[in-house]
Amino acid sequence: MTLNDGQKAASASKPLSSSSSSPLEPVAPSQELATLLPQVVQMVQAFVEEGEKPGSNVTAWQSIPQLRQNVSLDLPDYGSVKDGDKKLLDSIQLVLENSVNPWTGRFLDKLYSANTPVGVCADLILSVLNANAHVMSASPMLSLAEEKCVEGLCEMFGFNDTPDGLTMPGGSSANTLAVQTALANIFPPFREQGLLGISELLFEKYGRVGKAARPLIFTSDQSHYSLDKAAISAGLGLSSVIKVPCDHTGRMDPAALSRLINDSISEGLGTPFFVNATSGSTVLGSFDDLRSISAIARRHGCWLHVDGSWGGPIIFSPTRAHSSLMDGSELADSITINPHKLLNVPLQCSFLLVRRGKALSANTLDAGYLFHSKDARENAAMKTMGCGRRGDALKFWLYWVRFGKEGLGKHVDAGLRLANDVVEAIRDEPRLELGPLAEPLFLQVCFRPKPPRDHKGVEPPSVEVRSKATRYVHNVLKERRRFAVDFAPLPGGIGDFIRLVVHPRTKREDLEELIEEVASIGEEFWERSEESF
Amino acid sequence: MTLNDGQKAASASKPLSSSSSSPLEPVAPSQELATLLPQVVQMVQAFVEEGEKPGSNVTAWQSIPQLRQNVSLDLPDYGSVKDGDKKLLDSIQLVLENSVNPWTGRFLDKLYSANTPVGVCADLILSVLNANAHVMSASPMLSLAEEKCVEGLCEMFGFNDTPDGLTMPGGSSANTLAVQTALANIFPPFREQGLLGISELLFEKYGRVGKAARPLIFTSDQSHYSLDKAAISAGLGLSSVIKVPCDHTGRMDPAALSRLINDSISEGLGTPFFVNATSGSTVLGSFDDLRSISAIARRHGCWLHVDGSWGGPIIFSPTRAHSSLMDGSELADSITINPHKLLNVPLQCSFLLVRRGKALSANTLDAGYLFHSKDARENAAMKTMGCGRRGDALKFWLYWVRFGKEGLGKHVDAGLRLANDVVEAIRDEPRLELGPLAEPLFLQVCFRPKPPRDHKGVEPPSVEVRSKATRYVHNVLKERRRFAVDFAPLPGGIGDFIRLVVHPRTKREDLEELIEEVASIGEEFWERSEESF
Repeated sequence: MTLNDGQKAASASKPLSSSSSSPLEPVAPSQELATLLPQVVQMVQAFVEEGEKPGSNVTAWQSIPQLRQNVSLDLPDYGSVKDGDKKLLDSIQLVLENSVNPWTGRFLDKLYSANTPVGVCADLILSVLNANAHVMSASPMLSLAEEKCVEGLCEMFGFNDTPDGLTMPGGSSANTLAVQTALANIFPPFREQGLLGISELLFEKYGRVGKAARPLIFTSDQSHYSLDKAAISAGLGLSSVIKVPCDHTGRMDPAALSRLINDSISEGLGTPFFVNATSGSTVLGSFDDLRSISAIARRHGCWLHVDGSWGGPIIFSPTRAHSSLMDGSELADSITINPHKLLNVPLQCSFLLVRRGKALSANTLDAGYLFHSKDARENAAMKTMGCGRRGDALKFWLYWVRFGKEGLGKHVDAGLRLANDVVEAIRDEPRLELGPLAEPLFLQVCFRPKPPRDHKGVEPPSVEVRSKATRYVHNVLKERRRFAVDFAPLPGGIGDFIRLVVHPRTKREDLEELIEEVASIGEEFWERSEESF
Repeated sequence: MTLNDGQKAASASKPLSSSSSSPLEPVAPSQELATLLPQVVQMVQAFVEEGEKPGSNVTAWQSIPQLRQNVSLDLPDYGSVKDGDKKLLDSIQLVLENSVNPWTGRFLDKLYSANTPVGVCADLILSVLNANAHVMSASPMLSLAEEKCVEGLCEMFGFNDTPDGLTMPGGSSANTLAVQTALANIFPPFREQGLLGISELLFEKYGRVGKAARPLIFTSDQSHYSLDKAAISAGLGLSSVIKVPCDHTGRMDPAALSRLINDSISEGLGTPFFVNATSGSTVLGSFDDLRSISAIARRHGCWLHVDGSWGGPIIFSPTRAHSSLMDGSELADSITINPHKLLNVPLQCSFLLVRRGKALSANTLDAGYLFHSKDARENAAMKTMGCGRRGDALKFWLYWVRFGKEGLGKHVDAGLRLANDVVEAIRDEPRLELGPLAEPLFLQVCFRPKPPRDHKGVEPPSVEVRSKATRYVHNVLKERRRFAVDFAPLPGGIGDFIRLVVHPRTKREDLEELIEEVASIGEEFWERSEESF
């Protein structure tokens, strides 16, 4: 049979290689790809090489307002296909030229840094497959890779029961799904009746009403703000997150946790159901004590979640003193780990792992149009509160194939050695002041300019002035564009510090240069501030 | 200053071009990239070319158990870098060979299909930048592209007030954020006190208690299951979603909506706050009447969300009769649109747009370590309940540059013409039965084998037997591997139909082949079923 084609005359002039009449396919894709892709590969290669040049800058501009002034993006009414590839390639060039260049190795601003060539190849494969990992029939290999990585990770964390897990589009999403999963597992009416169902249940069971029947989350005051977001997302509200104080190294105080849980019950503030422990906190890189926290969580029937978004990969370390930072992980109910941070897998690559596989199905929903298989492993979207999913696990699997468990562990160790050396160097530098450090040290080093001994201003300079010095350094670094580092307010009211994230691939000489820069810009600040007194 | 380096002796043997001691960087990345990437580009090019061959198959296997038997993935203890690139490239080849090949143009199974060469290049750029779009300082160009695309889309949908929006990792996430955003805007205590705060508010305001103080969502029974997921996610529970019946074309019945809202209040079932209208439903491709629904939503003070994940791009159509399917979009409070579906942008690319920009800040949270800018446009992560974000908008921006608004519109029109022709062809085919169609027709065509007139079995065959015929065809198609199409149960108890998604780039001759296949496999089914009577 032949489709009646009112458009035949019009499409007769099209290249024979394609019979699609969509303007998105002016020629056969293979032909367009063969022309475009090698040119873009060249641009990408040049971008990486540019980044590696010793004199390169991390950023192309000193500030966003400057960028806005110099760059404007177009949304044309008419396309540029008929005029060739120039417009497209120019647009790509514009993006590359004005972006942060992580291949400099001097982007030390965030918990992620540069990708690797393996990651670039993996992204290219994901793109050409364009497969949705919601059901395995659409993404067979991506789903298998996910299954395999989940298995491998669960084994490392000691989940030996009926472990399961999946990738999520970020650590925050993974933490949020953990909260929603815990709610449904601890309070079965959650799925159908929501929080109202929970309060009815708690009334029947314990006679609790109002606030007392409110599910409570406990997490340290140094934990990631995604726990707060998860509480809002799930309809619990910010006030249902109880922040547990930390010691001076940024580690949750288990005694305080225990006390706060007891108080919340006795004072009718709510019903504890979720304890989050952090493995690798955002600012200091601290690891909560999983074993003690787990005992407390278990005593109160709470779900124990470990947010290892940042620090989770320490489990790969061959050095017992390092990997033992997550001792007790096997006692958790769920764990988040983001290989896109410390392991340099391209953004996003985040896993939520659960000790008991069934847990993830507590909120599940069927969809007649989508799920046809009776094998649960084939319906990944049934485990999430989303649907469509990018096959992010493939990237991690290819890293694992390329570097092995051993390579990933040595990578972590390389970073820890470097961070130790950085701390020693700052300690030896009289113009710098070290902030509090995680104990044992992880990969963040917080420091700031130290006022000179003979400083003629207000002596000793206040927290405000010291914070000002930090921000001054941060600004000058931004203007010079050689380094991207962040700053953060530290706990205990001691003000702002430069937060350096020592990535394992950071070059030693770059760290030396950075430390010297911060010291000398700081010196400049104190000299100026003296003038102003 | 020089960092004390305990590892100097060990690293002396490393290539001079790199001083990183991480095993993830055995040589300078530019060098590794120059070796690896061209090889992977060749594999990718071959994959696309293989797909385009007329005799190619969509899938490499007939079933997942078959795949599991033939393919097993490795998680090695030791990496393969020292042995060269073979292991990595073999692994990539294994993935390509065993995956769905969307470049055949015969993957018509889902609402997304193949990527384009522009999309592949865009993904490559995103990968090499590896920038997190949570704050603009980390992803200047990706954030600008996002801002621009949001502006352009908002303008097209008629959001002229203070429009805003952002990309989300999928339509389900976007719909969920819409629900959470509506909760916070309509019930200010939501952010701080959660649903408990809302019930207190509704008690004070209207004296409502228990179920009557429960926020209710209204959406059609043909809408996507992500609305149900959103209700679970936000702690409302499934029972707070009221399903509104549709007419026989799959469009929500506005009179029924109005009645159900009124009933829910008068019967104390809850407090309506959210109405979801669907533009392009999942199974039939129907568009709800936004103007009438908006009037009802407004009358009851409800937030109007439009789930245009699938159908939203119709706004680009130059044909008035098409784009008018979203007439009234300017009255919505929020809209979801997924360029990764109909517009062939690579997965994921989904936007949530809001009419009043301030709406997105109702649930916002600060994070001292992350947000340093006072300009809200620079802190995209403040608008979401997530944090880290891939810069998905870049892909869409490059499509817009390449094809223009005009090209994207003509693309949509090309699909609609094709779908019309498909319907005519099926109508002319005596061996096939058309299912109900969206009115006007969109891109889905549901059909199944029709029993022959002289069918000697039970006459007329029951819904069960007709559904069986559908599943039989679906299975045989899977075994033959030339086409991937899905099936779905249709509303009204009429059983399962093949759901063909006519993508604009689908080749006419492929559709002809598919229709003939379904007809002849169906014939086979009826002949067999006669034998069994």
